[in-house]
Amino acid sequence: MYKLKKLTTGVCSANGFFADGISAGLKADNAKDMAFIYSEKECESAFVFTTNKMTAAPVRHAKAKGKFKTNFVLINSKNANAMTGKAGIADIEEILETLPSGLVNPLMSSTGVIGVRVPKEKLINGAKLFDLTKREPHSAAQAIMTTDSFSKEIAFEVELSDGKSFKIGAMAKGAGMINPAMATMLCFITTDADVSGFEMQEILDDVTKRTFNAASVDGDTSTNDTVMLLSNAKSGVYNREAFSQALEKIMLFLAREMVRDGEGATKLVTYKITGAKDDREAEVVAKSLSDSLLVKTALYGEDPNWGRIASTVGASGVEADEATLSISFNELCVYDKGELLFDDEMEVKASEVMKLSEFSISCDLGLGDGKFTSFGCDLGYEYVKINADYRT
Amino acid sequence: MYKLKKLTTGVCSANGFFADGISAGLKADNAKDMAFIYSEKECESAFVFTTNKMTAAPVRHAKAKGKFKTNFVLINSKNANAMTGKAGIADIEEILETLPSGLVNPLMSSTGVIGVRVPKEKLINGAKLFDLTKREPHSAAQAIMTTDSFSKEIAFEVELSDGKSFKIGAMAKGAGMINPAMATMLCFITTDADVSGFEMQEILDDVTKRTFNAASVDGDTSTNDTVMLLSNAKSGVYNREAFSQALEKIMLFLAREMVRDGEGATKLVTYKITGAKDDREAEVVAKSLSDSLLVKTALYGEDPNWGRIASTVGASGVEADEATLSISFNELCVYDKGELLFDDEMEVKASEVMKLSEFSISCDLGLGDGKFTSFGCDLGYEYVKINADYRT
Repeated sequence: MYKLKKLTTGVCSANGFFADGISAGLKADNAKDMAFIYSEKECESAFVFTTNKMTAAPVRHAKAKGKFKTNFVLINSKNANAMTGKAGIADIEEILETLPSGLVNPLMSSTGVIGVRVPKEKLINGAKLFDLTKREPHSAAQAIMTTDSFSKEIAFEVELSDGKSFKIGAMAKGAGMINPAMATMLCFITTDADVSGFEMQEILDDVTKRTFNAASVDGDTSTNDTVMLLSNAKSGVYNREAFSQALEKIMLFLAREMVRDGEGATKLVTYKITGAKDDREAEVVAKSLSDSLLVKTALYGEDPNWGRIASTVGASGVEADEATLSISFNELCVYDKGELLFDDEMEVKASEVMKLSEFSISCDLGLGDGKFTSFGCDLGYEYVKINADYRT
Repeated sequence: MYKLKKLTTGVCSANGFFADGISAGLKADNAKDMAFIYSEKECESAFVFTTNKMTAAPVRHAKAKGKFKTNFVLINSKNANAMTGKAGIADIEEILETLPSGLVNPLMSSTGVIGVRVPKEKLINGAKLFDLTKREPHSAAQAIMTTDSFSKEIAFEVELSDGKSFKIGAMAKGAGMINPAMATMLCFITTDADVSGFEMQEILDDVTKRTFNAASVDGDTSTNDTVMLLSNAKSGVYNREAFSQALEKIMLFLAREMVRDGEGATKLVTYKITGAKDDREAEVVAKSLSDSLLVKTALYGEDPNWGRIASTVGASGVEADEATLSISFNELCVYDKGELLFDDEMEVKASEVMKLSEFSISCDLGLGDGKFTSFGCDLGYEYVKINADYRT
């Protein structure tokens, strides 16, 4: 038993964490484009990195360290430092060397355009503006945004039944390219829970499956994706169940916020798959639906075209049969095990559901106990506009 | 050695084949919506059907026959007869029973909206208008169109070195949902070559891999996809090599035409993958590129964003390394084995390539001998418009 109390202090919620964002001149109009997270005490760390083979320099730099403690992360937007080879790694090392001495294993994390060397001088000069005594989580959250239209933060105090508590806070960026297998998203989670790096990693891997890896904007996976979880253990308090559940709440919230902020998205749709042969097959169906262009455009058109849902289930490659399949929009069943229920009256009702900014599409495959829930968004003109001309 | 002579008589090119299209009142404004193909002599047949598990009734009906001879195909647009269960099969049987007696194993093929029973009376009355002595291939090709903006036909006379010849002609429909694993596309190929059904099937399966299954508009796979190859052997002539190559030319042309006519497409891009670990991995990369939303929208924006190409290669899951990868737009190499070549001058040149209506993007992975070529199109506002409101 535990209680969650919402906090508004993002990555600075946990004891001993500091953060801020500044402008280093990478973005236009003096917008914030560099951030740091700093902990007085060195932290246990856990990571989930992109599965993209063209791994960006900051990810390769961090991965090369193996298991390690750290107390400092430098984050920049506007340049991904990806496809930059050994020079990209050398740039990171050079930048990190200019930081104040005494930092433990400082890391870098980047997001932005691929295939351009980072503007090293700007980043070095930017880092000189950092004030490690600042607690400005919102400023940090803004600095890491790229095509995001709003910043994404959440934090909880987790109070255990004995009255003792620890805190977890997070910030994330990501709007396009969000993919079931991790995408151009960065997420930084800080906690003062007294948890080991090994245990955090185990929990983080598990929670990622049902949160960031169940979210899709366009099915692409980026070169830089990173979820970073840092614990400085300052509270001296820990309970695995409470920690896991609070972490899942945080990551689910941020994953859904990223989909809601999907480039040009106007709707957040939850795909609830049940009755698949097994959980893996349910996951394949759920992700096929949240990735399907035809489904996404039908959502945008607010068209209750359940035939596209059925066709996408059938195309996903898993065991499925029209005679056992049922499809519902929210609670409204539009197709029931081979029975064509759809008539003009139902179309009116289904259209009402499609007009909502959040709703669910449920598919019961009627074959077994497999289940999985994914979420995705619609795809409209704005997505095309944003992505047809991203670099210019 | 053989010579190909282009013919303009589509599916009526081969000896003994007849076809026409009529209006049965399924489309508005008396547009043609029903077609037939008829052969005086019964035909050997070969098929490639959709892999979608929600197989439409006409596909299930044809598959249930096993290996068989036929001399008549009835085709309708506007209604897919998919997700219609046993009633969908019964509707087909009832419609085919009203056809003139003496037809051998008549078949039906449908395309259009999913999840609505076919308008049986309209189709039965429409079939009564068929005149089996008509040779109107263009009329048939128009009748099978849905969102196609132009009809697709091609035919050749294949003259062997001994002066004898046979003919192959084809028509196809398909504009959206075109997918590497077959999509809402129908293709009918007729020939008077003297080839067995078994051998035709072998050749058709092989050629499909490099033609229809290498084409992508949006990565979805429909319930109704069918490629049908009918031979009435009337020429008494056959040569496997000449037949295979003519068939590949025909299917490649039609597959490219379908991509060019992809919903809202303005560009036809060929993805040439070389240097992959093996051919299968090259195929995965080629299809990842032609399916990628981020690549497609960059094409639409005529943005030479090679970083997205690299990122998509990396995300495809195959073995790849930025240090061995090279990327070219037509002959212009923009990234060479870790070397960042892209500067303002190159951007101008690359932008010129992107403005072409047809060009190629080549990726040499630099790891092995695997190669595969796919083709795809861009994705713009029109795609969203067409698909956001398809049914209404």
